Amino acid sequence: MRFSRGRNFLFRVPEGRELLGFINDFAKKNNIIIGAVSAIGSLRDPKIGYFDEAAGEYKVIELSGLYELVSLSGNISLKDGEPFAHIHVALGGPDGRLYGGHLVEGEVFVVEVFIQELLGEPLERKPQENGLTLWDAEE
Amino acid sequence: MRFSRGRNFLFRVPEGRELLGFINDFAKKNNIIIGAVSAIGSLRDPKIGYFDEAAGEYKVIELSGLYELVSLSGNISLKDGEPFAHIHVALGGPDGRLYGGHLVEGEVFVVEVFIQELLGEPLERKPQENGLTLWDAEE
Amino acid sequence: MRFSRGRNFLFRVPEGRELLGFINDFAKKNNIIIGAVSAIGSLRDPKIGYFDEAAGEYKVIELSGLYELVSLSGNISLKDGEPFAHIHVALGGPDGRLYGGHLVEGEVFVVEVFIQELLGEPLERKPQENGLTLWDAEE
Repeated sequence: MRFSRGRNFLFRVPEGRELLGFINDFAKKNNIIIGAVSAIGSLRDPKIGYFDEAAGEYKVIELSGLYELVSLSGNISLKDGEPFAHIHVALGGPDGRLYGGHLVEGEVFVVEVFIQELLGEPLERKPQENGLTLWDAEE
Repeated sequence: MRFSRGRNFLFRVPEGRELLGFINDFAKKNNIIIGAVSAIGSLRDPKIGYFDEAAGEYKVIELSGLYELVSLSGNISLKDGEPFAHIHVALGGPDGRLYGGHLVEGEVFVVEVFIQELLGEPLERKPQENGLTLWDAEE
Repeated sequence: MRFSRGRNFLFRVPEGRELLGFINDFAKKNNIIIGAVSAIGSLRDPKIGYFDEAAGEYKVIELSGLYELVSLSGNISLKDGEPFAHIHVALGGPDGRLYGGHLVEGEVFVVEVFIQELLGEPLERKPQENGLTLWDAEE
């Protein structure tokens, strides 16, 4: 699907906030219906998910301590009629080794977020048989 | 080199398709000559490359099973007169540990791609003595 | 904070240059005051930082050899009145395992950089009690 460009947001999330909730709230407050999201920073005690296909759900991996948020990449679209952020993260510990997956939650130490709004026909997530909620696929 | 902004594409790749080939075909079909690409999702049995400078070629690392596509980052430019995607990926297994490198191939389970087209003088990859195909460098 | 779109730059950094210094110099030379940065490629002997909160400074991790630059993500804003790039990287070794953190320095083998300039009220980094230099936080 093809979109035109909307607004651009670059901002720091306040320390202590839960990152995924903050991004979702920011999208709702600013009426961002479709968008691309990236960020860097550091998170405390992040929880990441690995999709367990057999179980049809995310297995949650809990990390503890402060992790560098080495990459955050994802998008905003509609789910149940509301803006919804789907986000993956790479996280680095004190020895530099990286862990990552689907962002489940993370407390912000410092996070700098870049959101590019896209304008066009809304993309909508719909529940699938495999347990995920997905857009219709491109042909 | 400096470019103006073209079209924006945000879409899901159908399950079962080979990701790198799909992105290359998408660029050709939509006549995207220059662009920036990012994506998240999950891949089956991805193959990644590490450039072995002594050998002048990529050493291929084959992963097996389902991996979270934690980041996908790259660009589209011309190679041999056709749109060509150069893509790097970070991949997370069930324990959250990340692997990554140059994307060689990967079967799509779920992948959501964002492509930003750039407009301007074409960037062209040319074969180098070291075995890579590269654009002329910025001064 | 909300911004409009400025110029777009996509280019290859010459082999042998130090990456972080090159991006900072490029921003100064081109008068890029605010922007988003991404890149892929490969680096020699990169040094990455993990922020040690107790010490209030980055602990530096030195890697040796050639690493795939699997992701580079960050931004440009003002620090001490000059354009300043804050960059995080994910790096893959010959076995595909990823390391990463805050980019301290890295010698370029091949790096392809994408910079999106943003236009608006300048974002300025200010020293904090915790040892970091940060923008005012979004409310």
